[in-house]
Amino acid sequence: MANPANPLEGVDTSNAPYVIVSSDTHAGLPVDGYRDYLESSVHAEFDEWLAGRHEHRRVTEEVNGEYIEEWEGQNAEGLRGAYDPEVRDKELDADGVAGEIIFADGDSVTGMESPPFGAGLSAGQITDPKLAFAGARAHNRWLEEFCATNPARRGGVALVPITQDVDESVREIESLAGKPGIKGIMIPTMWHDNPPYGGTHYDRVWAACAEAGLVVHTHSGEADFPSYSENVVQYVIEVPFWTHRALWQLMLSGKFDKFPGLKYSVVECGSHWIGDLLWKADQMFGSDGKVKKLSSRTKGLVEKLPSDYFGTNVFIGASAMAKEEIRRRHVNGIDALMWGTDYPHPEGSWPHTVSRLETDFQQVSIEDTRLLLGLNAIECYDLDIDGLTEIAARIGPTPEQLNQDPDLRTPPNAVRDARWWLEEYGIESKG
Amino acid sequence: MANPANPLEGVDTSNAPYVIVSSDTHAGLPVDGYRDYLESSVHAEFDEWLAGRHEHRRVTEEVNGEYIEEWEGQNAEGLRGAYDPEVRDKELDADGVAGEIIFADGDSVTGMESPPFGAGLSAGQITDPKLAFAGARAHNRWLEEFCATNPARRGGVALVPITQDVDESVREIESLAGKPGIKGIMIPTMWHDNPPYGGTHYDRVWAACAEAGLVVHTHSGEADFPSYSENVVQYVIEVPFWTHRALWQLMLSGKFDKFPGLKYSVVECGSHWIGDLLWKADQMFGSDGKVKKLSSRTKGLVEKLPSDYFGTNVFIGASAMAKEEIRRRHVNGIDALMWGTDYPHPEGSWPHTVSRLETDFQQVSIEDTRLLLGLNAIECYDLDIDGLTEIAARIGPTPEQLNQDPDLRTPPNAVRDARWWLEEYGIESKG
Repeated sequence: MANPANPLEGVDTSNAPYVIVSSDTHAGLPVDGYRDYLESSVHAEFDEWLAGRHEHRRVTEEVNGEYIEEWEGQNAEGLRGAYDPEVRDKELDADGVAGEIIFADGDSVTGMESPPFGAGLSAGQITDPKLAFAGARAHNRWLEEFCATNPARRGGVALVPITQDVDESVREIESLAGKPGIKGIMIPTMWHDNPPYGGTHYDRVWAACAEAGLVVHTHSGEADFPSYSENVVQYVIEVPFWTHRALWQLMLSGKFDKFPGLKYSVVECGSHWIGDLLWKADQMFGSDGKVKKLSSRTKGLVEKLPSDYFGTNVFIGASAMAKEEIRRRHVNGIDALMWGTDYPHPEGSWPHTVSRLETDFQQVSIEDTRLLLGLNAIECYDLDIDGLTEIAARIGPTPEQLNQDPDLRTPPNAVRDARWWLEEYGIESKG
Repeated sequence: MANPANPLEGVDTSNAPYVIVSSDTHAGLPVDGYRDYLESSVHAEFDEWLAGRHEHRRVTEEVNGEYIEEWEGQNAEGLRGAYDPEVRDKELDADGVAGEIIFADGDSVTGMESPPFGAGLSAGQITDPKLAFAGARAHNRWLEEFCATNPARRGGVALVPITQDVDESVREIESLAGKPGIKGIMIPTMWHDNPPYGGTHYDRVWAACAEAGLVVHTHSGEADFPSYSENVVQYVIEVPFWTHRALWQLMLSGKFDKFPGLKYSVVECGSHWIGDLLWKADQMFGSDGKVKKLSSRTKGLVEKLPSDYFGTNVFIGASAMAKEEIRRRHVNGIDALMWGTDYPHPEGSWPHTVSRLETDFQQVSIEDTRLLLGLNAIECYDLDIDGLTEIAARIGPTPEQLNQDPDLRTPPNAVRDARWWLEEYGIESKG
């Protein structure tokens, strides 16, 4: 387990295979299959929704057919791993991945493996609470079974549409507590016209998650669609903001002080934005003078420095990090960043994870690599390290395979040096 | 004038005084005084609004009285420069500032110098178009007179609430065209439930501004207030996003191709976010593979690389840059960044601008400093360089005063080297 004071201490620097945990994978049934997991009271609505899904597929093929055909043709077998555990294990093996944290929506290209009513990555857009919860519960039932196919390997993230109903959400969280394989919940990325996450409205949700040891997630998907005028680039530029916005709602309103056991991970929205967020937030709370006219209103909001919550309460499902993000690992949080392959989505590193690691981690120390590729996720989700190590012994790439220098060590002050604002503004950690 | 291919070429590296232009100052009448500039048809509504303003002052004093008393007590004379041109010139002189770009809302602490109905920094929140335009026109009438008190020195930014009515906005822009002293317009930061800026709805506005040579601005102020649960820190963290959001609405929807004369500046929301925005945007348009499944939908949206628009169409009113922002000047845009004092607001460098420059620019070359402190603004706003140089000869600090090394030169590849993604992804400028 990581040591919060020095996460690098005691990390194995030998040539033992990496225990890789993908903090961002997806799974889901082909949409029709969810019927068996759905309460019969909403079957009529489900049939209507299904028809819409198939129509959506047809339209998407019209617009982007060439790409879809290429992607699905080249990866036909591997894509079946979205719901077939045997295929999935083969794909994870080939990618060098021992363990995985599983989100909904296996098919991000045409949406044909979405939970009923879009209760996965689009949950915030559902307007009927009955359907939102029915869809979520259907996926959660299936997910529990799916994770049980390989307990050491699979950690599932259940769906809880907390914006729809707090009481119902707390009940669902309590029923998920202690279920083997369920390691966290995903909440709607956006709260729309409902109360924001930083108020007190959802405090019983955070309390229940802290109590149950379930990590809270927002995952890239939703954004302010009406503002993009059908311009997809606007979406791509903005979607990280809409995804990680929940982070400061929770962190800067003191939720991690009120619920010290609460953990939150923001998934697939990169990590490039973290350094500047921590600079600004640490400066606001750790030094006087910047927001003079506001200083009387910041007192008592949080107990620690914002950066102190990283690696204990806040984790980053950074998915397949760009080289630049790997270079920024110390400023962003060497004890918080978690690699993810995004399998079986096309945006990620699958099915070329190992060759990507061979290229991108050459200049990274073994201890840093172990944290980013697996140990941070094991810490965040309290995973079965022995079971994962056993799998990794068979399929994990070694430091030598990643072309790494066995003598390269992370300097002891790497994090403090990278977080330049601590020295420049004379800010001390309160962690 | 700057050379777009190499903005550093020909920049004076002698010890001549810096021609400093503050790209972010504020001015406004004490609220009661706007009556004389306001159409009499809205005097009744004005009286009601005035009463609310005075009540707002009272409440703000209750909450933050100690700070207000200190700020207003220590700066009583200088704060009068918000509307008194003689006082103002003395303050600019003492701050070493030759020229200025003037926005509304002189008083950011208690809002007592706001244009009628909040038509300045809060324009997006006005619900009645009649009041929005009446308030804007009142301020514009006063601003024109105010700028005429020292034409070489003052460039005014008029108010045009474009979200309220496009026809009316175009008429106002056409009436502002060619008025001495008016150099740009400020539009509402947020479009709320109106059409977003990246669609075609406002194209006649952009055309009129390009034709009139008026720079379009969004300025920090508005944000998504209902989401902050009275938590001021949420506001401070988010307000840059809400301010610079208009940038990609315009840039990534091709407005600078459709209207090549259009210029846009985003003001007082820092510059720390620019490098990563340009990385992501350049990557999206300059290299294949990142957004595979979207590539068919990005073709033809823009003609150049996003970073190519910086320094020609896009400028950054970066206000009083932090040292880190100065260090990042090459990645962010050495030909686009414009220093600003934010006079007479407390967040800026006034009344200590010169001592701040003496500390913060020691490691910066003279040519870079000239661009950041004045030449970029002169280029952006087509200011009277001779008139400004005359003022600067009297009051501008010299490189020697800023403790700069006269032999320090900017390497010729500074910008390309700083924009690491161009080399790493093999992207070529299309500028």
